Parts: sequence; C-alpha cells; structure tokens
Amino acid sequence: MASRTDSSRHSAVTDPSDADTRVLQRRDFLRKSMALAGGGSLAATGAIAAPLEVPASNREIGRGMEARAYGMPSKFEEHVKRNRSDVLKNRQNFSDWSMTPLQHQPGIITPNGLVFERHHAGVPDIDPRTHKVVVHGMVRQPLTFSMEDLQRYPSVSRFHFHECSGNGLTDWLKPVSVTVQQTHGLLSGVLWTGVPLSIVLEEAGIDSRGKWVLCEGGDGAAHARSLPIEKAMDDCIIAYAMNGEALRPENGYPVRLVVPGWEGNISIKWLRRMKVGEKPWHLRSETARYTDPMPDGKWRQFSMVMETKSVITSPSGGMKLGKPGFHEVTGLAWSGSGKIKAVDVSFDGGRNWKEAVLEEPVMDKSLTRFKIAWNWDGGPAVLMSRAIDSTGYVQPTVADLSKVRAIVGFVQHHNAIQPWAVSANGEVKNVIGQA
Amino acid sequence: MASRTDSSRHSAVTDPSDADTRVLQRRDFLRKSMALAGGGSLAATGAIAAPLEVPASNREIGRGMEARAYGMPSKFEEHVKRNRSDVLKNRQNFSDWSMTPLQHQPGIITPNGLVFERHHAGVPDIDPRTHKVVVHGMVRQPLTFSMEDLQRYPSVSRFHFHECSGNGLTDWLKPVSVTVQQTHGLLSGVLWTGVPLSIVLEEAGIDSRGKWVLCEGGDGAAHARSLPIEKAMDDCIIAYAMNGEALRPENGYPVRLVVPGWEGNISIKWLRRMKVGEKPWHLRSETARYTDPMPDGKWRQFSMVMETKSVITSPSGGMKLGKPGFHEVTGLAWSGSGKIKAVDVSFDGGRNWKEAVLEEPVMDKSLTRFKIAWNWDGGPAVLMSRAIDSTGYVQPTVADLSKVRAIVGFVQHHNAIQPWAVSANGEVKNVIGQA
Repeated sequence: MASRTDSSRHSAVTDPSDADTRVLQRRDFLRKSMALAGGGSLAATGAIAAPLEVPASNREIGRGMEARAYGMPSKFEEHVKRNRSDVLKNRQNFSDWSMTPLQHQPGIITPNGLVFERHHAGVPDIDPRTHKVVVHGMVRQPLTFSMEDLQRYPSVSRFHFHECSGNGLTDWLKPVSVTVQQTHGLLSGVLWTGVPLSIVLEEAGIDSRGKWVLCEGGDGAAHARSLPIEKAMDDCIIAYAMNGEALRPENGYPVRLVVPGWEGNISIKWLRRMKVGEKPWHLRSETARYTDPMPDGKWRQFSMVMETKSVITSPSGGMKLGKPGFHEVTGLAWSGSGKIKAVDVSFDGGRNWKEAVLEEPVMDKSLTRFKIAWNWDGGPAVLMSRAIDSTGYVQPTVADLSKVRAIVGFVQHHNAIQPWAVSANGEVKNVIGQA
Repeated sequence: MASRTDSSRHSAVTDPSDADTRVLQRRDFLRKSMALAGGGSLAATGAIAAPLEVPASNREIGRGMEARAYGMPSKFEEHVKRNRSDVLKNRQNFSDWSMTPLQHQPGIITPNGLVFERHHAGVPDIDPRTHKVVVHGMVRQPLTFSMEDLQRYPSVSRFHFHECSGNGLTDWLKPVSVTVQQTHGLLSGVLWTGVPLSIVLEEAGIDSRGKWVLCEGGDGAAHARSLPIEKAMDDCIIAYAMNGEALRPENGYPVRLVVPGWEGNISIKWLRRMKVGEKPWHLRSETARYTDPMPDGKWRQFSMVMETKSVITSPSGGMKLGKPGFHEVTGLAWSGSGKIKAVDVSFDGGRNWKEAVLEEPVMDKSLTRFKIAWNWDGGPAVLMSRAIDSTGYVQPTVADLSKVRAIVGFVQHHNAIQPWAVSANGEVKNVIGQA
C-alpha cells in the first residue's frame, strides 16, 4: 500500500475563511460563490425581441416514438462516447478497453452506454438461460446456480466506483494524454445490484482451511483472480444488474463479481466459477500483470485497494475557458478504503488550498462529486485537487509516490494529484510532472 | 390534497417481533430472512460434473468493441423496453407516452433508455447550439441564456423520482392492466443535473408583484404550466443532464425544468421561456386537463404534489412464482412531500402488516427501495405495500381516497395501495378493487 503521506491535512488549508465552506447549505454556497466571483451575469443579456422569436420546433409536430422502445442520446451528442486512449499502440481487438468521457459526465453515475470496459479476449454474448455459476473446492456442498436461481436470493443495490488499476498509467512523469477521458477514464460510477457473495459462500459452507477463492470468467481468456476470503465475506456482490437494468455484455452480462473499492480486474466478468482453496493461485494476472514495481527492484503482488484519488473534470485538458470571472471547478473523488471526507482544491499549483463542497450523497467506496467557485483573473493558473478519505489518508503527489514505488514505464495504481494548467488564452492542458 | 387518512401507523404493524427489522444491519437482515423462510437452498444443487463443463464462451474469442463507442443492452434483453399501455385506444403518435418496465428495474435509478416519457406533439430534435431560454415578464432585467451560458452557472445534481399525474389512472375500481409497467410505469428515478432555478430568477430580479412563473416548452404543443414563485425559488432545477449525460430528446433535450415531487407535466421539457406574472395563467393543462374531480362535483386545480405512494415490483402482475419457500418481496416507495420514513407490507390482503427494510440511500423526493422476506406457503395470498413519509402521511386505500375524491373514469393522482394476488399455481394478478 502507498504510504500515508500526510495525516494533518487541515493545516494545509491555507485560507481559514474557507474552512467551513463544506458545511454551508448548498444554496448559500451557490449564492456566495456567485458573489465571490464578481457577481457579473453569466447570461447572454442581449436585447430580447418583442414579441419573442418562436423557434421552428414550436411550429411543427415532432417525431413519433414508435421505434424508441429503448431510447438513445440526441444526434447532437454523438461526440460523447467511449474512446480508447491512442497512446498505447499495440491495439488488438481481442484485448482492448474503452474509457468513460468524464469531461461530459455530471453527478456520480456513469450511464451504462458509457461505463468503461476492459476485455482480454473480446466480449462474449452469453445466453442467460443456459449460463451457470459454480461454487466448488473446499466447501461443504458444491453448488450450481442458474441465473434464475441467483435472482431468487435476497438482493442488494449499492453505489460504488469502479476503476481499472491501470487508470492513468501513461501519465506519471510527463504529460502524454490530453483529456481527462484519457488520463482518468478507466473509472465509472455504478449502482450495482446482485446477491451478497457472503450468502452464497455461507450456503456452500467454507471449509476451515479455505482462505482464498479463485474467481474465473466465462470469456475466451478465462480471466481469473484469487480473492481473499475476508473480502469475499465482507462486501462483495454477485451482480446481475447495473444502474437499474441487466449488465451490459461488455460489463459482464449476465453475471459478474463486484469487489467494492478494489482494482477492477478482480471484479471478474461473465462469472463462471468460484473455487475455494488454501492459498492464492498466483495466476498470470497476479504475477506477469497487475503487480507494482517497488524502489528496491522487487514487484508487489496483490495490491488490491484502489487508494484515495480525485481529479478535476471541469475545467480539464482540452477544454478552453471563455471569459474571466466565475467558473465552477468540479470533479470526482473516491476511495477504496471508505468515504471521502474532504477535497481541497488549489488554483496556484499547490501553494494555496481551499476546501471544496462535497455534494450529497457521500457514500462508501463511491464516486463523490466536489465543487468550488473560482474567480479566474484571466491569467495563467494551475488547478489541482487532493482528496482525503474517512481514514485520514491524503491523496499524494507523484513525488510522494516516487518514494514508495519505482516509476518505471507504465506503472499501475497511479492515484497522484493531477494538475491542469490554464493559460491566459483559456486553454487547459495536462501538466503532470511539470507543475 | 388528499386527506391524511392515518397518522398512527405504528399501531397497524401487527407483528411486534418485526418492529425493529428496519434498523437491522443489512446482512443480519438477509441471513435472518433466509432462515425465517425455511433455509432451504435456492441453488440448483444438482450433481457437479468433474471436470467442470467448459462453456463455449471460454473456448472462443469474443466480439471486438469497434462499433461500441456507445454501449447497448444484450440481445437477450430485448424484452426490457418501454411500452405504452394498450388500455387506452386513442393512440396518436403526436400525443403519446411510453412507460418504464419497473418489473425489470432493480435499485432506485431508471436507465435513460427506459425513463418514461409523455409528449403532446411529438419529440423535437432541438439543436443546442441555437437553443435559447428566456426569462421575462415582471423582472428587473429580462435575460436570455444559451446552453453554454447555462452550463457556466453553478450546478446541482439531485436524485428525484419523476411521476406523471396520470400514473395508474386506468386502474381504480377494477383491474384493467396486467403488469406493474402498465399500472405504475409512468414513474422513473433520475439523477438530474442543472442550474438551480432560484439563481436564474434572482439574477433576473423578481418584481414584488411577481407570484407565478409561466414555463413554456419549445415543442409543437408549446406545452406550458403556471409555477408558483415559492416552489420556483425552493428546489427547482433548470436541468440539462440526467443520470450522468445530456437529457434524452424525449425527456427534454437540451434543457428542461425539473420541479421535484410535483406532477411530471409541470417539469416543462424543451424549456424555451419563463415569464413572471401576478397570477396563474389557467392554461389548458390547468383547466381542461390535469384537474381532479371532487365528491361535490367540482374539479380541483393545481393539485401539484405527488402524494406518498408505493408499489411492490416483485412479485407483480404477470409474473409466475416458482417453488414455495423464500421469496424476496421488493418494491419502490416515494413521496412528493419529503423522505420515505417506512413501508409496511401485507401478505394477507391487509389484515396483518410487517415493516420492510429500506435500502440506503433514502433521499428527499426520491425513489426508495424496500425489501422484505416472505415465506410463501404455496397457498393463495394477496400482497400489498403502504408507504409512510417523513411528514407522517400514510398511503391510503382506494376506499380512503373515494371519501375525498370522485372516482369517475380516468382520474389523475392515484396514489392508493396496489394489491397483487398470488394464486396457488404461482400466478400473480392485479386485483385492485377486488382485494
């Protein structure tokens, strides 16, 4: 685990007048924000014609809904889509990924059409009528579950962030990516629904020697991971739905594991079997992949928890600010260890920090939206956010992480502070390693 | 407003051993539920082949993701779609609606492709680059907003239920509809994002005579409603996003009003203008439509609040239960007056009631998911739920509502208790008015 680099975070909030911003009522905050930021109108207060111009849409009948049993976004929103980062060139369709356009996502939920995905051998189209999940190994009674069986069990629905351990791996020491979709888009917010894994394991009856669970997918890669029994019995979900409907094929349809707060690749998609054993299996994804280089030249295995992290999604790389004056700075924060307690934002590259407002609901191992007013003076600025979680852990800088990790090439588990530089012409750029 | 039919609800919970079920930890509840319900395995515990059968999906490479920049549901989920009720035969494409398949929706969010919609003159495809929202009338300064203007204001994201006042109007005194999609599907749960209406109105500066706001859409019907200034300044949102992405065309793209907890038709879609005035406008949707018949023969106008309501979504009409034993009974509860405080469930047509568990987060004017274990003995049963909100209001029966409303034909604002009958063969039927 990364070292806890600062536990006395409140001393770092350098403007004490903002210390209680977080607990202000939301509307007070909004009004105060507008006032602080100069109070100038943001409306286009041009002359209003009298009588008002009546738009064409008011003068004609719109489209009917016959073909719209399942709705789709407006044709004017086609630019909002998942994209693979173009930075890594070894594209193979059967081992690929696509990233969430966080710059276009308000709130804390990612719509299912835009939830990031990573697959190792393409996306299978599994028939739920024949799919089975097996629990075997060191258990009192092996069990087989059809989808119908699973859906008869008591269910839970919980909001959790979902993040790939490789999120951000292209951008450690210098900027390689442009947008927040490229730097942080292996991240989504999902309301998962399914059966608590603990119920299923208890019904199978874990042998006292059973300490790990092999979880394996029904895809062409048979992607698998070893899950410690403590986590399996804690808060894991055998999930069959996301955001109010069945899982999408690329996200594990018809059933997957969800391991809240841990690296995404252990939340095995297309879940086929779980085998209880005494030790971890040291699979390819636990040895050749998904391990972290340490300063002493060794590689760390089983670094599961996605540590506390945040990123400003607006303004972010590739955007261009308009006029100086009020701008809402907003972003996402999350922690695999618990709830987000606070987010500090700096407008001057980390010299001064102000505490942002967290938007309710703030939930365990879930995306949390933060917001803060910024009165842009029209000059160059560097924006950063740093999250603090309920355990007191403070999101580190790359320099902090370099003390406990070897930053060599494409390293996983990048939870360092992301700086965005705003130039005098309003252009926003990724300046990781430069600020 | 409907009368408050019962404020001493706790006396109605007839099994005191369940009085504290609601505050049990979730896992304790789940374990207790399974135990209470007989403890029999729900898994298909047939013989497990050794070695395990390897499914075809494990032996081949899946599909690539090239064409999947915006994801879609599995081909095996094509039955999960919005449907119009077939009960009302006067179908006109330009005045139509489609309903959310609540029987397939877990959790408290409706995915955007399945959010219900109602339109009076088709669905316009409005170009966000040219669309304007105007604030005028009794204001200090009339204002015009482009979409870009609106998106520069401070934003809020809030979970709210959204319900048409006509939800359930076909099923008062006898069962007409079969499924919960038909009886309750003009209901969805959405995370709305936009600008607080109060900020925009304060910036325009409301004249002291201004007490109502005319809100009008840019559709072919120019659908409009009169909004009291108190509500306008309270919690309304000028929304441009839903569930993490831009509004869908049929839900008001690029911008709509959201009036939390009030009947859906006042949340004007394709919002074009807001005019401040002294009195309500008594528009067609406030006189000829969207009014409620009273016992004395008069019609009530401006019955805006969607009163406290709940419905069991599983089991629900059209489903067929399998084996006797444990079944999770689950549904949705919501209130336009605040938070849901409790939901009681009856398995015997209202003679005995048990308190269900509410799943967190429980939010103001939002869908709340409730769950309770049921040990079905294989005999006939009638399932009902009744919600209690944070003001103490208790969801009424149709008989209760008949005392304060004339039930003549297709009446709006139907928030009465919904009974579902389970027969010995497991078939579930709508028995409104029969139970």
